[in-house]
Amino acid sequence: MSLRGLPPADIFDKALGGERRALGRLITFVERDAAEAETVAELAHERAGNAHVIGITGAPGSGKSTLTGQLVKLLGEAGKRAAVLAVDPSSPLTGGAILGDRVRMEDVASPDTFIRSMATRGHQGGLSLAVPGVVRLLDATGYDPIVIETVGVGQVEVDIAGTADTTVVVATPGMGDSVQANKAGLLELADLFVVNKADRPGAKDVRRDLDLMLDLSHVSGQDQRTGMRPEIIMTTALSGEGAPEMWDAIERHRTAITANGQLEARRVNRDIDEVRNRLMADLESRVDLMLAGQSLAGVAEVLDAVAARSLSPTAAATQLAARIKDL
Amino acid sequence: MSLRGLPPADIFDKALGGERRALGRLITFVERDAAEAETVAELAHERAGNAHVIGITGAPGSGKSTLTGQLVKLLGEAGKRAAVLAVDPSSPLTGGAILGDRVRMEDVASPDTFIRSMATRGHQGGLSLAVPGVVRLLDATGYDPIVIETVGVGQVEVDIAGTADTTVVVATPGMGDSVQANKAGLLELADLFVVNKADRPGAKDVRRDLDLMLDLSHVSGQDQRTGMRPEIIMTTALSGEGAPEMWDAIERHRTAITANGQLEARRVNRDIDEVRNRLMADLESRVDLMLAGQSLAGVAEVLDAVAARSLSPTAAATQLAARIKDL
Repeated sequence: MSLRGLPPADIFDKALGGERRALGRLITFVERDAAEAETVAELAHERAGNAHVIGITGAPGSGKSTLTGQLVKLLGEAGKRAAVLAVDPSSPLTGGAILGDRVRMEDVASPDTFIRSMATRGHQGGLSLAVPGVVRLLDATGYDPIVIETVGVGQVEVDIAGTADTTVVVATPGMGDSVQANKAGLLELADLFVVNKADRPGAKDVRRDLDLMLDLSHVSGQDQRTGMRPEIIMTTALSGEGAPEMWDAIERHRTAITANGQLEARRVNRDIDEVRNRLMADLESRVDLMLAGQSLAGVAEVLDAVAARSLSPTAAATQLAARIKDL
Repeated sequence: MSLRGLPPADIFDKALGGERRALGRLITFVERDAAEAETVAELAHERAGNAHVIGITGAPGSGKSTLTGQLVKLLGEAGKRAAVLAVDPSSPLTGGAILGDRVRMEDVASPDTFIRSMATRGHQGGLSLAVPGVVRLLDATGYDPIVIETVGVGQVEVDIAGTADTTVVVATPGMGDSVQANKAGLLELADLFVVNKADRPGAKDVRRDLDLMLDLSHVSGQDQRTGMRPEIIMTTALSGEGAPEMWDAIERHRTAITANGQLEARRVNRDIDEVRNRLMADLESRVDLMLAGQSLAGVAEVLDAVAARSLSPTAAATQLAARIKDL
């Protein structure tokens, strides 16, 4: 039956009933920030809050996609109704090989698993607004756990992974120094470290380095927030070795943060962050309209004065800030 | 003589007269966004606009710091009054080795060269506000060229390098795949590619790959903006080989964009971007105050409704956006 012309609330009911095409349509509304998106958000928000949201991030080539595939396989075998959001250009969802054998994630997943890839489409800000909305929808329609796989390179991707209930950072032996430079950020983000490619030389060194860093980071945000030291799990994603241990560690983390109240605190923070991101996106588009001279008289004159060097950008910003309320 | 208690305009006069300590003090005002910063910006802006601003960026380990050192040496020998801003944790300014021989940049630079390192200090947004202000100061006080060295990893650093008149992207043989992932962004940014470590195996392959990418990128922003295809220069920073050719290519780029009007267009865009960044920073702090419940009645109630799941973050953002004007 066609969904065309149905009101979003009816499509939502179909999605609640397990109709995948309906869920897909709702996700598209959210991704495009369509007129229907606010209704969808309202309907989903009141039913959401049950799913365990897991972020998996790591450098390209760290094997996090293969690891996600192994996790999905495990979850399917355990009868869970899992969802995967791949926010990663190198993900098997977008055509890459998985399990070293060109098996795609769809092939290893149980029929109950919902898999979706989200592309950046140029504007990264859009992604950080869309991902929480899609997670909420999956949560409201009964998927649990929800795995968000992101490549740990850009700030947006790292931020997205960091908003999960449990954030898994995948490291590997032989990573270059650009990843080293990023480690500080990832270290604070991680609830759990996975050293993948554990069969390779150097894997134990990576584990030792991570252990050392954790020892040194008395002020690590995560440690203070949860009172927990992130576990380090060794895996070989290609063979699946270590994947069950990874899942056990993820569940231990969830149990612990549920018990100590951190889960609820994180979720409240996540919602406030979303409000904040939406507000800032709204203000950003107002500022862009203003600077393009399309919404307020006198702005072109201010910018001309800057170009003529009679007004500094600092002073111009101060003048225009006073006029934001007129937008 | 002490600068303490002098009004910023007097310190500015001393800086104009070549007093380095005065310039350093003004830079500190700008970096800290101190009360004096707006006066400093005004004084500097009307005198700025002469210096050639060069951005040098590349992955950690690409040798861009060593290359910057070689460039500084050349410029000193040519009698130029150059300035270097190192926005890079691995820069020799902060203690790293240079020229493979633990020679620090200060040692190779002529006494006329002004060298300053700017740290991220946690808040990256602050850096993108401070760098243009410091460049303006250096420009106004007669430094030319001004070299901004940034590590091409984070978005902020890449953005900073991209605001230069001439942006140099340093590539090397044997870069990992995380750098590959970033290449698209760097490709659009580059006015000039430098393949450093040209004596290593694979350097010619890097050159060929870059050439191929440039051939394929019909829609490359830089190409369209300048009508120019970025040159590719081979260097060996450790020995200094290729550094004069790099400088010649930088000057050719400057000559070309001066002739075709792109230089002026870029500078106007740079100033507008700065106004925009300052406006957004101002709005961001207003939004943060609002969400912390410190500036507006009723906000806590809206956020409580979100936590209680009776209001979605989307709807909450819409409600609060309507109240921004009250801030």
